[in-house]
Amino acid sequence: MRDVVVLGAGMTIFGKQPDRSIREMGEEAAFLALRDAGVKPGDIQAAWCGNVLGSLSGQQAAVGQTILEQVGVTGIPVLRVENACASASFAFKEAYMAVSSGYYDMVIAMGVEKMSGYDTATTLRAMAGTSDFDMEGVLGITFPGVFGMITRRHMHKYGTTMEQIAHVAVKNRSNGSLNPKSQFQGKVSINEVLHSRMVSSPLTLYNCCPISDGCAVVILTTDKVAKRYTSDPITVAASAQTSGTYQHDLDITEFQPTIRAAQQAYDQAGIGPEDVSLAEVHDCFTIAEIMHYEDLGFCKKGDGGILAENGDTQISGRIPVNSSGGLLSKGHPIGATGVAQIVELVEQLRGRAGARQVQNPRIGLAHCLGAFRHADVCSASVTLLKK
Amino acid sequence: MRDVVVLGAGMTIFGKQPDRSIREMGEEAAFLALRDAGVKPGDIQAAWCGNVLGSLSGQQAAVGQTILEQVGVTGIPVLRVENACASASFAFKEAYMAVSSGYYDMVIAMGVEKMSGYDTATTLRAMAGTSDFDMEGVLGITFPGVFGMITRRHMHKYGTTMEQIAHVAVKNRSNGSLNPKSQFQGKVSINEVLHSRMVSSPLTLYNCCPISDGCAVVILTTDKVAKRYTSDPITVAASAQTSGTYQHDLDITEFQPTIRAAQQAYDQAGIGPEDVSLAEVHDCFTIAEIMHYEDLGFCKKGDGGILAENGDTQISGRIPVNSSGGLLSKGHPIGATGVAQIVELVEQLRGRAGARQVQNPRIGLAHCLGAFRHADVCSASVTLLKK
Repeated sequence: MRDVVVLGAGMTIFGKQPDRSIREMGEEAAFLALRDAGVKPGDIQAAWCGNVLGSLSGQQAAVGQTILEQVGVTGIPVLRVENACASASFAFKEAYMAVSSGYYDMVIAMGVEKMSGYDTATTLRAMAGTSDFDMEGVLGITFPGVFGMITRRHMHKYGTTMEQIAHVAVKNRSNGSLNPKSQFQGKVSINEVLHSRMVSSPLTLYNCCPISDGCAVVILTTDKVAKRYTSDPITVAASAQTSGTYQHDLDITEFQPTIRAAQQAYDQAGIGPEDVSLAEVHDCFTIAEIMHYEDLGFCKKGDGGILAENGDTQISGRIPVNSSGGLLSKGHPIGATGVAQIVELVEQLRGRAGARQVQNPRIGLAHCLGAFRHADVCSASVTLLKK
Repeated sequence: MRDVVVLGAGMTIFGKQPDRSIREMGEEAAFLALRDAGVKPGDIQAAWCGNVLGSLSGQQAAVGQTILEQVGVTGIPVLRVENACASASFAFKEAYMAVSSGYYDMVIAMGVEKMSGYDTATTLRAMAGTSDFDMEGVLGITFPGVFGMITRRHMHKYGTTMEQIAHVAVKNRSNGSLNPKSQFQGKVSINEVLHSRMVSSPLTLYNCCPISDGCAVVILTTDKVAKRYTSDPITVAASAQTSGTYQHDLDITEFQPTIRAAQQAYDQAGIGPEDVSLAEVHDCFTIAEIMHYEDLGFCKKGDGGILAENGDTQISGRIPVNSSGGLLSKGHPIGATGVAQIVELVEQLRGRAGARQVQNPRIGLAHCLGAFRHADVCSASVTLLKK
C-alpha cells in the first residue's frame, strides 16, 4: 500500500444557513480545498461524498455530482456514501483506500449536510431513521433519549457527576469561540450548562450538539505526488472502521465499535493512545466525549469525568480534544462532520490553527460514530494523521 | 491487483411486495448468497449496500447494518452507497476495489429497495430528486419525460420507429416469462406495446419499467480463496465507472458516460464489444436499451432499432441482451438493480439459467446508469465477468 497525504482541506462555516443550498455550500468548500491543495479540477480522478438528509431538500441522489460540477470536477466516478453521522468519515475511508491501493492518484473526500430550513419535527423524524426505525424509531427512541440513559448509567456505575460532564461543554464552547468556522462563538460557564433548558434528563441544552448546515472537503493524493505541491505533507497513518454487534448484554457506558476501531488504528500506525497529540471526537453529547476518552484509551474506564474536570483535554492540556469546538460548538451537519474533523487536524498539524493552536502536535486522531440500534452504535471510524 | 471472483449470488423475487420490509427482503437475499457461496457469516470482512429511497420507509440510515445483523454479519465495516439507479453497481465497484487491492479477502456487495407501499406521488417525487432537483426537478422534469424526448430525437435523427423500439419490450417480457424472479411473467405483442396506455409520448406503458421492491446480494473474494469453495469460479474481468460532463451541446441520443465506461472496461479486460457473450443493460425505457446497444458498441450509432428488430439481442441471437427480463420485465428496485444484473450474469456463466440459458457464454457485461441532469447521466458503470 502507498502512503496517502491530505494535500488540501476546505470547509464552509458550520451553522444554520437556511438560505444556502447543498450546492452553494459544497461549491465554497470544494473551491477552498482545491485552492488549498494547489491542484486543478481536472487533476481529480474520483470523489466520495458523505450525505444523509439530501432527501429533505429534494436532492435525493447524485449530491456529489451536483456540487462538483460547480467547480469543474466532472466525468469521473462520484459516489455518495452514507453511514449516518459517520458518513464523511467513510467517504474519507473509501478515498484513502482507493489512493493507497493504487486505483487513483488524486481524489476528493467530502461531506455535506443541510439540516435547517425544515420544521424541527421533519428533521428529527429523519434523524430517528438513523436508529432501527421499524423496531426502535417508531417506539420513540431519539438520540437525546439514548444519551440521557447512558449518562445516568455512567453516573451510577462510575460516580461521574453532571459538573464533570459540564466541563466538556465549557471547554468545547471555549474552543469554538477561537474558531471562525464554529457555529457558536460564545463561551458558557459550568453554571449555565447545568441550568440551561432540560432536553433529556439529565442532559440540558448545552450538553447537546445543535442542528447545523455545512460542507467540508479534503483532497488526498500519494506521498510521491504530494512532493510536487508541498514540502510539509500531512500523512494518513491509519484508517479503521467497524460496525456494531447489537448484543443484548452490552454495557451502554462503552462503545465496543470505538474500542475495536481505535485498537485497529493504533496497530496500523504502530502507536498507542499516549502518542496522540490531539483528537477530534464525536461529541454529539457531552457524555459521549467522556465515553470516547475512555474508549480511545486516553484514560482508564470510568475516569472520563475526572479527565474533563482536570482540564487534561483542554487545548493546553495533556491530550487536547476537540480544539475545533467539536460537534457541541462547531456544529454537526451530520454528513459533513467526519471530513470537518480531518480539516481541523490538518490545520493543527500544519500549525495554522491560530488562537486555538495546539503546541507542536505530531499525531492527530479523528473519531466518528454513526447511527445507533439495539444498544450499540452502527458504525465507528478512527483515522490517524501525522506530520 | 488481485483477481476477484463472484463466489456467491442471491436475490429475492423482484416485484411489488408492499408487505415486506427492507429488512425481510435483505435477509432472504443475503441468506441465499451466503448459502450459494458456502461461506459463514463470520468470513465476511466488509460490506457495501446500495440503497436510494430508504428515507421513504423511515430507515434513513444504516440500511446495510439493519439487514446484515439478520444473517449474523456484524462488527465489520458496512457502508451504504448511493448513485441513484446505479447504486448497487457502485456497491459492487467499491467491494471489487477493496478485494482486488488486498484490503479484504471476502466481502459483500448488495443492493436493496422498497418503492411500493407509498402513494405514487411520494415515490415519484423522490425519483425526481435523482435529477438536479433545484434546477430541473422543481420544473417538473421526470424520467419518462426525458426519455420521451430522447425517443423523438432518435426517431428524427436515425429514422428509428416505434415498432423497432417495441421489439425491446416484447423481447424483455418474453425473457422475463422464463425467469421465476421476474416481476412480470407474461409476454406482450408488438401491437400491445404500441397501444398500451400513453405515459410520455411516444412512450406507452410497456415501454417503461415498473415500480419494484427487491434485494440482490453477491459475495466477492480472491481467486486464491475461491479455489477452496469452487472449481468453477466467475471472475471480474473489468469494472469501470464514470459521471457526466453536463455540457450544453450534448447529443441526447447517446450517453457519453456509457461510452467512456465501456471503453475503459474493454481496455481493462483486453477485449472488444464483439467478445461479449451476453449483456444486462439499463433498460429503464425501451429507447434506453436501443441507445445502450449503440453506446456499448454492439452496433453502430443509429442502428439500435435495427438490431432489436432483427432479433440479434434475443437469447438465441448474436448478442443476447437482458436475458433476465431486464428492468422492463424483471423489475427495477433502483438500489438493487446493479447487483441483480451481476446475479443474472453469474447464473448464465455458470450455465444454470434454466429456460433462458444463453448458449455457452464466456463473457458477460453489466451496464447501469444513475440519475440525470442537464441532458447527461450522472453516473455510468460497466462491469465485465468471465468464466
